[in-house]
Amino acid sequence: MTTEPVSPVRRRGRPRATERADTRERIHHAALELFAERGFHATGVAEIGAKADVQRGALYYHIGSKEDLLWAILRDYTRLLLADAERIIEAHADPVETLTRLIRSHVELIVTHRRAVAVHLRDADALTHEHAVVLQQLRDRLQRHWQDVIDAGHAAGHLRTADHIVTNGLLGMLNSLGYWYRERGPHSPAEIADILTDTILSGLRATDDNTEG
Amino acid sequence: MTTEPVSPVRRRGRPRATERADTRERIHHAALELFAERGFHATGVAEIGAKADVQRGALYYHIGSKEDLLWAILRDYTRLLLADAERIIEAHADPVETLTRLIRSHVELIVTHRRAVAVHLRDADALTHEHAVVLQQLRDRLQRHWQDVIDAGHAAGHLRTADHIVTNGLLGMLNSLGYWYRERGPHSPAEIADILTDTILSGLRATDDNTEG
Repeated sequence: MTTEPVSPVRRRGRPRATERADTRERIHHAALELFAERGFHATGVAEIGAKADVQRGALYYHIGSKEDLLWAILRDYTRLLLADAERIIEAHADPVETLTRLIRSHVELIVTHRRAVAVHLRDADALTHEHAVVLQQLRDRLQRHWQDVIDAGHAAGHLRTADHIVTNGLLGMLNSLGYWYRERGPHSPAEIADILTDTILSGLRATDDNTEG
Repeated sequence: MTTEPVSPVRRRGRPRATERADTRERIHHAALELFAERGFHATGVAEIGAKADVQRGALYYHIGSKEDLLWAILRDYTRLLLADAERIIEAHADPVETLTRLIRSHVELIVTHRRAVAVHLRDADALTHEHAVVLQQLRDRLQRHWQDVIDAGHAAGHLRTADHIVTNGLLGMLNSLGYWYRERGPHSPAEIADILTDTILSGLRATDDNTEG
């Protein structure tokens, strides 16, 4: 029932694993684009099928429901952020260097996955309770990693405070990129990361040490 | 057709102006609560009527459509932020002091109106094109005020940079309060404003000047 070319080696009428994976990826990609553009509620399953070039019957073979697609998008994106943070933390740099790397990598992931960020910011409330709980656990783990790094920086005397307000505000600042980042803006993601890192670490106030030029 | 008590001085079967205003306010309040809790798309007009204790026919007399309610919520909130920023800027304090007052007042307004913020962050995309354009104009004016203050601080040598990335990041940090502020958290809105102001102006990095204790 899919519109994929029929492979001569297909057996028992079921698509092969690689074809199934391709189809699933097309469906996920279509859902991500439509959810990011119009919102979860305003997107119909039929539109996702049309965009992915998959018929309705096959669509339900590959995915369970529209909510399952939303869950897959938000889960995959949050797991990606988490794996990336864990990789950076495991390198055991000093806390300020680790924080700098976390900010830079977070900015790059947000820019790369800004459609998932937009869906996250807008439509996370549409998850089932069960999925919302698991997503919150993943986000809490991520936030705890950032907090641990900031705590370590404070304990070592390199950071002035480790208040949770700062961690929340910092992550809020970075996540807001999902709203205001423009592909054709004057700065690359790396430059944006540098500007935000400087703002967070050194502040905006001019001092003898940080005055430009 | 409303469930309001019938006033003995009501004439020609129409509610008096004060009653109309009361009813409108009840409807707006109910819409704000429901949109903030469940989202615009998941809220039905009938639920708004039930929560506001207004019957469906009267509901459409008082408001045009569900989208009109969304528009009123987002417009009123953004106008409030704008009027507040203009009041602070007209006091002509020095730019760093003005920025500090802007941050403090913005935090307090966000905390007070966090349901409107949540609706703004999630459901602004559900506005009609015409309303979305006007909302964007209001937001652009607000952002330009902040940018002007930061530009003035930079021109006077008090701020190290006036890059738009910083202004976007700062506003993103403050607006993210709509997600993470908890009424029973350990800090008052004024304390949160102080912590975020210090972070933005002085940075997180410990120096001889800013080390705690």
